[in-house]
This record gives sequence, C-alpha cells and structure tokens, in this order.
Amino acid sequence: MSAPGPRMRWWGWGEDRAATPLPERAARMLREELGLEPSGGGRHVGLDDVRLADPSMPSDTASRLEKAVGADHVRADRLARVSHAAGRSYPDLVRLRSGEGLNAPDAVVYPGSAEGVARVLAVCGEARVAVVPFGGGTSVVSGVEALGEGFAGVLSLDLACLAALKAVDRTSLTATLEPGMLGPACEAALAKHGLTLGHFPQSFEFSTVGGWVATRSAGQASTGYGRIDELVMGLRCASPAGVVVAKAVPASAAGPPLRELLVGSEGALGVITEATLRVRPSPEARRYEGWSFRSFEEGVEAFRSLEQGGAAPDVARLSDEEETRLTMALASTGGMTERAGGAYLRLRGHEGGCIAIVGFEGERRTLGRRGARARRLLRAGGGLALGERPGRAWRRSRYAGPYLRDDLLDRGVFVETLETASTWSELLRLHAAVRGALRDTLSARGTPPLVMCHVSHLYPSGASLYFTFLARQESGRELEQWGDAKSAASEAILTAGGTITHHHAIGRDHAKWMEAEVGELGLEALRGAKERLDPAGIMNPGKLLPA
Amino acid sequence: MSAPGPRMRWWGWGEDRAATPLPERAARMLREELGLEPSGGGRHVGLDDVRLADPSMPSDTASRLEKAVGADHVRADRLARVSHAAGRSYPDLVRLRSGEGLNAPDAVVYPGSAEGVARVLAVCGEARVAVVPFGGGTSVVSGVEALGEGFAGVLSLDLACLAALKAVDRTSLTATLEPGMLGPACEAALAKHGLTLGHFPQSFEFSTVGGWVATRSAGQASTGYGRIDELVMGLRCASPAGVVVAKAVPASAAGPPLRELLVGSEGALGVITEATLRVRPSPEARRYEGWSFRSFEEGVEAFRSLEQGGAAPDVARLSDEEETRLTMALASTGGMTERAGGAYLRLRGHEGGCIAIVGFEGERRTLGRRGARARRLLRAGGGLALGERPGRAWRRSRYAGPYLRDDLLDRGVFVETLETASTWSELLRLHAAVRGALRDTLSARGTPPLVMCHVSHLYPSGASLYFTFLARQESGRELEQWGDAKSAASEAILTAGGTITHHHAIGRDHAKWMEAEVGELGLEALRGAKERLDPAGIMNPGKLLPA
Repeated sequence: MSAPGPRMRWWGWGEDRAATPLPERAARMLREELGLEPSGGGRHVGLDDVRLADPSMPSDTASRLEKAVGADHVRADRLARVSHAAGRSYPDLVRLRSGEGLNAPDAVVYPGSAEGVARVLAVCGEARVAVVPFGGGTSVVSGVEALGEGFAGVLSLDLACLAALKAVDRTSLTATLEPGMLGPACEAALAKHGLTLGHFPQSFEFSTVGGWVATRSAGQASTGYGRIDELVMGLRCASPAGVVVAKAVPASAAGPPLRELLVGSEGALGVITEATLRVRPSPEARRYEGWSFRSFEEGVEAFRSLEQGGAAPDVARLSDEEETRLTMALASTGGMTERAGGAYLRLRGHEGGCIAIVGFEGERRTLGRRGARARRLLRAGGGLALGERPGRAWRRSRYAGPYLRDDLLDRGVFVETLETASTWSELLRLHAAVRGALRDTLSARGTPPLVMCHVSHLYPSGASLYFTFLARQESGRELEQWGDAKSAASEAILTAGGTITHHHAIGRDHAKWMEAEVGELGLEALRGAKERLDPAGIMNPGKLLPA
Repeated sequence: MSAPGPRMRWWGWGEDRAATPLPERAARMLREELGLEPSGGGRHVGLDDVRLADPSMPSDTASRLEKAVGADHVRADRLARVSHAAGRSYPDLVRLRSGEGLNAPDAVVYPGSAEGVARVLAVCGEARVAVVPFGGGTSVVSGVEALGEGFAGVLSLDLACLAALKAVDRTSLTATLEPGMLGPACEAALAKHGLTLGHFPQSFEFSTVGGWVATRSAGQASTGYGRIDELVMGLRCASPAGVVVAKAVPASAAGPPLRELLVGSEGALGVITEATLRVRPSPEARRYEGWSFRSFEEGVEAFRSLEQGGAAPDVARLSDEEETRLTMALASTGGMTERAGGAYLRLRGHEGGCIAIVGFEGERRTLGRRGARARRLLRAGGGLALGERPGRAWRRSRYAGPYLRDDLLDRGVFVETLETASTWSELLRLHAAVRGALRDTLSARGTPPLVMCHVSHLYPSGASLYFTFLARQESGRELEQWGDAKSAASEAILTAGGTITHHHAIGRDHAKWMEAEVGELGLEALRGAKERLDPAGIMNPGKLLPA
C-alpha cells in the first residue's frame, strides 16, 4: 500500500457528499440574531492560492526518510502538505480558508510498521527535525499544526498505514489495535467478533484510535462505556529514546503507571504504535429518549440523581435553555408535529425549558430494567418524557456538527466550542461564569454572541460542560476575536475551579494555560519525563507543554 | 498534641489485646504437614537487645528539625527508632524479631501541618538527609525501611499528627482527608456525614489514607468500591522542590494526569499532605454469602461471568482447592455443624472443591435485585449456595491474618503472601506457574511448602491472584530462604505476563523487578519526573525506583 490521499476536504470537515447545509429558515434567524452581513464570510481560497513556505528539509534527511519507510510512503506535494498543516480548530480553519499563516510540514511520511515509525524518529532525532504525529487530523486545539521553529525541518508522521486490528481476546474482552484505524473501521473490525469499543466522539468518522488515546478522548457514550483513558489497558509507544511498553494488565500497584503517562501525551513523548483496549459485546438493543426539564438547574439535579443513584444511562446530554431554544429553532421546519410538540410543552409548564437526551445500550434483558429505573428518577427530578423521537433525531445527526460549522463559516459566523468539567457543587457557577465571560468579551467587541451549553458526561463527583458559541465574525480580525473569547472563557473556567479541557486536550490552543492547570512544578515533572523519552525535544513541539 | 507513641507492637502486628493465636488442633496439623520442629521458631528479642547503630544526624540538622516542627514533635529514643525501622514484610519481621540487620532512622519527626512537612523537606534537602514518609508502617514490601546509605542521615517522617477530615462535599460525594488518618478513624469521621470510603485492606486497622494513596492500595471491597487509584480525585504533595497540586476534577484531558504520577509514588516523589477522595453514602445493608465450586477453574469462570455480566458483587473472593482445604482445617473445631457441612458438600459432589465469598453492600432497595442476579449467574456457573454463615465468619476474621502470622512465626513457620493480576485468559496459567515455582524452589531447599491462593478482585479484563504460602522456617537462613522463594515467584509472575504487584506496591522487595515490569525506558521516564521533584534524591531512597 502506498501513501493514501487525505481523508478530509483540505479546507474543512469530512467529505463533500456528506456536507450538511443550514436550512434557510435557520440561516435567516441567525442573520437576524447575530447581525450577520448578507454577503457572509465567503468560501475558502483555492488550493493553489494557499501560501506555503518552501520545504526546508535537508536533502540527505529526505533520502534517509525514504529509506526508512519506502519512497512511496513519503509525500511532499502541495495537497499533502496543506492537509497536514492544520487540524480542525477554529484558528486552523481560519488559516486554511484564508490560505494565510499556515505552518505546513516540509514532508509527510506514512510508516507501514512500528519499526518504520522508530526508524523515522531515529532519522529525525539525528537531523533535529521536528515530528508531528498525525492520526485523523481532527484536533480542535491546534494539536497537529506543524510548528518547526528552531528545528532543521518539520515532518508530519501520518499513521494511516498502521491501521489493523492485531488481536482479540474474547475471554478477557480486550482488543489490540493499531493507531491509524478510523472510528468506523475500528467498530467494523470489532463487530466481526461481536464486540464494540463504544467510543463515539463527534469526530468519530474521521478520528483515529491513536488520536483518541493520545488526547484522552471522551465519546458521546462515555458516560456508559468509559472515557478512552478508562478503556486503555496497555500500549506501545515509539519515542526517540526507544520503545516504551505499558503492559496490559487489569490493574497494578507497580508505581505510577506508564499507561497514564502515555495516554494524553499528545505526540509530545512519542508515537503510540499499538493500544490494547477493553471492549464489550456489541449491544443487542438501543433506546434513546428525549426528556424535558423546566430549567437547566432542575435537569442537572436530575442527572446527578441518576449518576449517583447508579442508574446512569450510556449517553446523557442535557442542553441549557439557550441550546434548547437554538437547537429547536435551527431544526425547525415550522411543521404541524412541531407546533403540536410546542403546545404540549407549554401546557405542562415546560416552555423555555431544557431538552435532555438519555440513551441506553446493551443486553435486551437488562435494558428495560435500567430504563425503568432511570425514568423513575428522571420523573422524580421533574423530567417530562418526550419519547424516542428526539433520541432518534439526535442519533441521526450526532456527527453532523462539524459539517454545519463549515457552512456557518461560509456565512461569516464565528463559531467555536470549548469544554470543561467540574464537581456537581460548582457546576452551575462554572456554567454562569463561562457564559458571562463570553458574552461580556464579545459584546465589548461589538459582536454579542449566542452561547449554548450542554452537560455531556456524568461522573459520580461531577460532570462536563460543553459550550458552543456563535457571533458575527470580525472579518480580517478573526484570530484576534477568537483569542479574546478563548482567553476570557479559559480564565473563567480556571477561576471557577474547572479543568481547562475535559476531552479536547491541550494542543497548542490550551498550552498557555497548562501551568495554571497543573502548576509550575507539575509541568516540570512532565518535562522531566519528556526529556528522558525525547532528549532532543523533537516530538510535537509547541503542543501540550509550553516552552 | 505532642509526638504520639507507636501504634503497633514494635516487633509484630497490632496490639496484644487483639492477638489471635492458632487453635491447637490447627497447629498440630501444620506441624505434621510442614515438618516443624516442636520447639518452634521462638519469640522476638527484647527491645533493649535490638542492635541499633548510633544516630548519625548532624547536630545542627537536629536543631533545625526541632525548629521546623517543634521540639516535642521530634523523637530519637530507642522505641521510636525501632518502630520506624521496618514495615511488616516477612524480611521486616525477621529483622525485628531477631534484632539484627535493622536499618533504623536517626530520628523521627511528626509534622503537625503541611507547612511543617515542607519545612522538614527543606532542612533535609539542604543537609542531604534521606526522608522516609511513614503512615501506619504496615508495608509488606519493605517500603518504610530507613535506608540512608550515601546520605548524611535518615529521617522517618511520621504523619500521625496530620490526621483530620478537612472537608466534605455531600453534593459531589467527595471528602478531603489528611494522610495520617487510620482506617477506622477515616470511616468514623465519614460515618458522621452518612458516608463511607469503602476502602478495607487487610491492614485497615493500622494503615493510613496517605499510605493507601502512596501505594495504589486495593481493599477487600474494591471490586465494588474501586481501588484507591479510582477513588482519588485530587491531592497535594509536598516534594523537596515544592508543592505539587493535582486538582480535584471529575475528569480531564489536560495531558498525562499528575494525580496518576503521585498515586503510587511510594514517598519517592514527595509526601502526600492531603487527598480528595470519592465517597459514597454509607451502605444501608450488607449481605455476605458463601458459595462452593467443584474446582478453581469452575469458580474462576463463574466469577468472570459475574463481572462481565455487570453483576459483580462488592466483595468477591474465590479460594483455590488448597486454600479451601487449609482454611477449613485451620478453622476446624471438629464440631457437628462442621461435619454436617462436609457431608452436604460430599453429597453434591463438591468435596475437595473451592469456597467463595460474595458480598453485597448498598441501598436496601437494590441489594435484593443485585443479589438475585448474581445468584442466578453463580448457579449457572456450577456454584452451590452455602448461605450467609461463611460470609459472616469471613467478615469477623477479615483483619486477623497478620496477627496469625505473628503466631506462626513464633512456631517457626515461614509464612509469606504475594499477589499479582492478569487477564482472564492467562489467569489459570499464572496460578499454576506461581504454585509450581514456589513448590519447586522450596522443596529443593528441603522445606516443601503449602501454597494457597485466592482471586480477590475482579475486573472486566481479568482478576488478581493472592498467594499465601507456608513452609518450615530455615533457622538462621530465613532471609536467604525468603529471597529464593520470592525470586522464583516473581520470575514466574513476570514470565506469565502478570504484574509484579496488584496492590502491595513495589517498596524495596520488588524494586529489582521494576525494570522487568516497566522497561528500562519506562524507568527512565519515572526517574526524569523524580529528578524534577526531588533533585537531591532524598525521598525514600531504595524504594520504587532501583538505583
């Protein structure tokens, strides 16, 4: 197999055939509420108009890399370089679409084996070439930008050719996978054994096993199936200093676990070349329901009672009032069923309230009992059952968000998401603080935003909050506008005791808050570990650990 | 509060009033099966006969330590030094009882605050004095031995005066505790809030919160409540380079978690001064039952079906044939109920089989349903219900093991425990390999052992195995005999893919296998982190990370 082409449109999300434009009715509403220019933001530049620096890879290094992985596994053409210059953060998309300010790799290599990865790292270590491990390129924190300042060159190491299911242990319910497997391929391979990993981030269709592990990813069903850090049993990681193996055992007291050091290492310690993950039997049945609450606060309390009562569903999402309003308005067709639904909610005092999605997966035998128990608690917490229709609708569009973002960008909308987690006792304060910070900051710039939020993952001690905000894009000052909003939200999160990221990772965008998150000495400890694995500091510079 | 006296008998476990001697009938059986000398091994030497090196602490350091924590919080008397010279591993006990070969600290300090801990570390860092953090002193891997070679002195840092419940968050179900709290004090303080931590290692009565966290402890109910590493949300750690704070959030994707670096750091990175732990409502009800299986293999399969079927109990223990035989024989009174029980088992083809204990705790409302579901699976797996009597008996004696060990040592029995964990698919192979290694090695020395084992913790991917073995003690060569057996078992564990320790930690006894466990480069990464937190290497030298 020679080097594959890019998996996504170079300037945006996914594939043309799956693009999801905003309904005209919804677009009109946004134009009004955000005060958009009718002309919008415009489309992206053409590939040939993207500004790229000339590749700076020393020629002997280039030939050594060809030897390391095979000449047909090295690419340095414009499409390959642009496709590996950025992930899918808002700043990434601004840079891609304008064709300005991109940091593209000098070349892209596609090793076909773990040994090939090790050979590439050896070449780059000697030549002081920076290496950016690349899975699906879906990072929303600028985690794969090819930053090569101070190095002899910068290489993107694409794991697309390391994409096999290597072993299944049906007895122990584990599977060993290579890092380059995309979500659908991973699930399809496991399904042949009657198994599932149950990891479904919104990026599922274009993100990879290795990327999930490297970023401590959580999926939409992680309340039930567990975050990726709970699913990783063992892994292999090729670092410039050699191979690190965190062996796959159910539990151990043999000191601080290497597994935890490598899960979330974001390519800054090495390249994950294999992961042994916990899997489960494929669910026999699924049931996703919609629920309504009179307020976000009421819904949060109901979700807390579910989780702490041992009745948590596998998928649990609770939109706040603003997200509920906008989701319903954007999906609105103005049809009769919809109007009837609105009347039903009004009648029961739930107008202007919050919608929740609650999903159960698993054995048919236990699903009914689990659902019944959860429904009892949801009702006791003030919830109103809306049946399966909203659940089915959510499932249908669960991966559509990033496509919608492309369309919003075309229309001149500044659209960004960010997320955090906190204890139950601090959750509402955190929610108010982030909303306030975003509204104040963007209003002061003359671009008052719409700020929506949902609870997306439940834990006994707390939950995550996932914010989406929209505002009129300041043409020509997109990155400054973003930086202001991002800083305000991040400071609000940290002040309120939340974590700077619950599942998006640190990347470049959060690196400057890493010290506030883990402390100066905490950072030093991580740097100490990195130094031993990556003495020349070539692994994904500028990400995770601030300089 | 001034410096407290020792919590345990200096030469053995616990307190005199709770000593548990072996019934005479059982002692006779062991004498026969192990070929013991009738004279036994004899009692320990007197405190005054313990050989201690003169304290070597430089006098200006001593006075600076007094200033750091208060003069009445420093002790250097014989009892304090001997009580902090060893934990409760077999080599520790051999050294304590003979009064030979002990490595005692030059002094013991009892800081009364986290700031006091930091001041002690500052003094010791400057003076190059080694520091051994000391909780309950119950380590069974020689984790608190005061090794000071190459240092200007060695200090035991006892956390007994840092023992408060600092905060409770009833909404988020978390509690913040100081490290020196003993198990019973911790549970009593939480019980006042209607809460429990649910952490009950066999050492519960004399081990501490800080010790549990520092060693990645698992308790007898950890199948249900979770290992301590699953219960720690956040913590504070005083290291020589400063304070590290792993903030308490439900989950985070902000890089490799500091929490996981500090949990299991065994005093080698710093002193845990505070931990925020997940707690639960105190259970309303408990039900512990005995079950019988025709074979260990059958029982293992039944336990796997419980765990993977989502019906795991909170306590799950399955003794192998040898442990079942010996446990029953050692507890035997020869009474009528017992003979009737034996007849019952014979009648059902369970003679010579395996006993399991299955315990449920929690809400009264859910206990019945959970139990019924588990019973269905246990029966389907060939289990025979023995009712609550064996469960109650196990609960009564759950902390008695270490007292019994003192009595066995008096009788000249070499008695040791070790533990590991592996995947379900490798568990029986591992079981056979360790038994074989111990039998071969000790038989070759002319002291054929009795080797017993139980499964003690269940995970979806595997389980732990806990071995106890007994043999005639080789008088005068106790440590050599132990070393041989320990090496043979450890090599067998590593060869069979198990972890070198599931919940006892590394300490000094396992340090030489740490490289086999995590690899050379894995060790280097941990050393890199340690170097930043403890640049002079004064923290608990000789433990966790081999030199």
